[in-house]
Amino acid sequence: MARRSSRRQENREKRGNSGVPQIPWQRVSNPNPPLEILNADQIAMIHDASMQVLEEVGMRVDCPKTRSLLAEHGNKVDEAATHVWFDRGFVEERVAMAPATFKLRARNPERWLEFGGDDIIFGTVGGPAFVNDRDKGRHPGAYTEFQDGIRILQSLNACHMTNTGIFACMDQPADRRHLDTLLTGFTLTDKCLGASLLGRMRAQDALNMACIVHDTDAAGLRAEPSVIGNINTNSPLVLDTEMAQGAWTFAENGQPVTVTPFTLSGAMSPATIPGALVQQNAEALAGIAFLQAVNPGTPCLYGTFTSNVDMKTGAPAFGTPEYVKATLASTQLGRHYGLPIRASNTNASNVVDAQAAYESQMSLWACLMGHVNYVNHGFGWLEGGLSASFEKFIVDAEMIQMLIETLKPLDIREETLGVGAIKEVGPGGHFFGAADTLSRYDTAFYAPMLSDWQNFENWEESGCRTATDRAHDIWKQLLEDYEEPPMDSGVRDALSDYVARRKDEITRAPAA
Amino acid sequence: MARRSSRRQENREKRGNSGVPQIPWQRVSNPNPPLEILNADQIAMIHDASMQVLEEVGMRVDCPKTRSLLAEHGNKVDEAATHVWFDRGFVEERVAMAPATFKLRARNPERWLEFGGDDIIFGTVGGPAFVNDRDKGRHPGAYTEFQDGIRILQSLNACHMTNTGIFACMDQPADRRHLDTLLTGFTLTDKCLGASLLGRMRAQDALNMACIVHDTDAAGLRAEPSVIGNINTNSPLVLDTEMAQGAWTFAENGQPVTVTPFTLSGAMSPATIPGALVQQNAEALAGIAFLQAVNPGTPCLYGTFTSNVDMKTGAPAFGTPEYVKATLASTQLGRHYGLPIRASNTNASNVVDAQAAYESQMSLWACLMGHVNYVNHGFGWLEGGLSASFEKFIVDAEMIQMLIETLKPLDIREETLGVGAIKEVGPGGHFFGAADTLSRYDTAFYAPMLSDWQNFENWEESGCRTATDRAHDIWKQLLEDYEEPPMDSGVRDALSDYVARRKDEITRAPAA
Repeated sequence: MARRSSRRQENREKRGNSGVPQIPWQRVSNPNPPLEILNADQIAMIHDASMQVLEEVGMRVDCPKTRSLLAEHGNKVDEAATHVWFDRGFVEERVAMAPATFKLRARNPERWLEFGGDDIIFGTVGGPAFVNDRDKGRHPGAYTEFQDGIRILQSLNACHMTNTGIFACMDQPADRRHLDTLLTGFTLTDKCLGASLLGRMRAQDALNMACIVHDTDAAGLRAEPSVIGNINTNSPLVLDTEMAQGAWTFAENGQPVTVTPFTLSGAMSPATIPGALVQQNAEALAGIAFLQAVNPGTPCLYGTFTSNVDMKTGAPAFGTPEYVKATLASTQLGRHYGLPIRASNTNASNVVDAQAAYESQMSLWACLMGHVNYVNHGFGWLEGGLSASFEKFIVDAEMIQMLIETLKPLDIREETLGVGAIKEVGPGGHFFGAADTLSRYDTAFYAPMLSDWQNFENWEESGCRTATDRAHDIWKQLLEDYEEPPMDSGVRDALSDYVARRKDEITRAPAA
Repeated sequence: MARRSSRRQENREKRGNSGVPQIPWQRVSNPNPPLEILNADQIAMIHDASMQVLEEVGMRVDCPKTRSLLAEHGNKVDEAATHVWFDRGFVEERVAMAPATFKLRARNPERWLEFGGDDIIFGTVGGPAFVNDRDKGRHPGAYTEFQDGIRILQSLNACHMTNTGIFACMDQPADRRHLDTLLTGFTLTDKCLGASLLGRMRAQDALNMACIVHDTDAAGLRAEPSVIGNINTNSPLVLDTEMAQGAWTFAENGQPVTVTPFTLSGAMSPATIPGALVQQNAEALAGIAFLQAVNPGTPCLYGTFTSNVDMKTGAPAFGTPEYVKATLASTQLGRHYGLPIRASNTNASNVVDAQAAYESQMSLWACLMGHVNYVNHGFGWLEGGLSASFEKFIVDAEMIQMLIETLKPLDIREETLGVGAIKEVGPGGHFFGAADTLSRYDTAFYAPMLSDWQNFENWEESGCRTATDRAHDIWKQLLEDYEEPPMDSGVRDALSDYVARRKDEITRAPAA
């Protein structure tokens, strides 16, 4: 009886609380050496060129307080032109203050993550304005759908952490919808959370709610970082006020910030990948140096988003050969500076089809081979990031599960080398019924959640369904089986009260 | 005028003689170090275990002449049981006689290939009984469709070479259809060719026709190998008569042979990947040692086809984590023996969907990272190899083109580092109209043949077409634009005469 219930428990864990087969949630270490496509001279050339850009071209920095801080640290500032020329010594010295690795706390104490080193973390899509699923097609996102999206991502064990901006809730007022998404993130999932850094207010709300969830204060949060944020420079070479202030708020509270230039080669950066990398490097290092000036030791990730555009149309392209090489080169740059690296699982397809899969695979393999530490947009990104797809959640989960299993070393021992089994079966025999095979029946191989390996006749009889058709069923099943992770009711109430109070404040005094 | 026509010529080459954009046909070198997942001790353990299998379990060898040869070389043979126990010294010594690299001649003198070293060769699907396209669905292959398939593969520049068995022509008599497919292969394509080694007769016909095409004799063919073959051991541990005799025919004529055990883990080999590798290694090395006994120095490839089955149903699985690891480990084994390595672009999907793409990508990345030399089934494989798909030809071509471009090193020079362009554009500007960008307009980035990067609205307006829908159009376009590569009419006639004569012979004296 005890044995049966423990097996049920085990199965339940394996299936992620539903009938959908999954690998268990786990931290993932990448045992392979990174694939390096740049030599030391080439890294030095990119570094020097990016320092030349920061010194000679400089950046527009819109936030006066940020300019003041940078001026205090010896960088040349033109207040009238809101322009900063960065000092190479300042940048190099400050970037070196960022830690090589850091831990992020989750609500579930077992689900903390380490950023840096050999760890690889798969996070969710963030930022789309649209949501896309088989039932409703592509449409502006709504809050109830957002909650369902977070429920699905909580249920996918391959998903390490979630962004609270998996898509915009267009049915909520723009100046307070972050409160609903933070509440959803803190209550419907127990994984690590990413929050919006769009301005000081949103960042501070995330910190305040993290304090409530972890029953701590600013000092406690600083001791144990509990929420992560991302800023994009407005490439080329602009740091806007909202991004600067949001990141500043996180930095002064010791919460990790990714700095990701938006360097699409041919549009927002030069029409060569080396040129785009130079500009990316300049912007990323300037941003990180700024945060280290706010608070030395702030955990920072080196973010790469360098891809290219279609030169004929200007359309962004993702998961291309250029994207792969830019990602591999960026990981080398990040490691050169001793920084954990963030890249993405991208594609430019408008539909969950073969293109969506092969462009995503190109992106994911670049992350894997380059030793990316944090794969943002891991689950659900479609259409160049303009929409979040529920079916893609599942396709991505299958692809990422497979990659996680691929990273596990082969278990080579006398027992697994199979000489006994080969002797048992002999020439012309069959291993399917062999004792050795039966003893390994349950655990021998990766069991897919989405892939269909039926023969053609059975597949045809069961309706000729594609992977995308099946993905639709799977997310529905996950939603049906979803169980909200337990939370102390006092904490839950305090969060709700906070959200209500802040909404009221914002309603009474909306931002200018 | 001259300039315009040379540009047209160039564009024509770039587009592969049609409106479909393509990279040019090219030999491909893999500049990256191989990803190694086994250490030296583990390689030694697999080697020792496989030698133990060959010595203690041995193989069933159905062909009496092959058994005699093996007996002559000191291996223990039981004639009544048609069984051979291989001597480890014989195997090791003979395998060492195979060359590490070899060249294969094509009808087009510019399209020769080198097997081994850093080269990676992408070949076509081989072996399916069915063909699959959007117009007719999945059905037994017909000869006219076979010809169209070869025309498409000739037109795809990413395709280095073609199998003459891309699918079976079920409307032709089984004992002579190889003559039609060889004739098609030698006339409708000018790339390197793979031929069937199913028995001495088929192999000899391929050799005779290669002699006609290259205006040479057996000695000339031996000096310059001109057609390649593949045999599969009937795993576990059986070498059948047709395979042995076909391979023998090629080996005694110095033509290259791939030896590929069919070791699906859990069905035809032990239910562990290390065990399947042990058995694969035993069977591959036994086959190669046999061919080196027939003719020392015969070019041989170490073939890996190790994957796993779904333990619940016995269905074969491809492009799985197990497939990736088996492929990576196999490349290390092949290199350990100084042999070029063959693996495959596999998937188990019944339809050209996201699953087909992600399983294929897993397979292709394993080949790329492992430094596979010859990627068999590169174009068109679907449904675990039971069907050849015309749409998949195109999806594979796009994926392989992208990988070929990914292997090209970044061009890092002062001119490409973009500092000038960044100065030209400045903060907040746009690179699209910049002089530096315009100077790179034509050649900046990979131009896809299949991927659609339109925005959602345009994509919707143009009919919501998936990659598979578009692939259908592309293969039709390639067929429409196809031009038969020129051939001396005397050679053409001699080939036709040979086929007619041989068909007549076979009709009058069919095989028993």
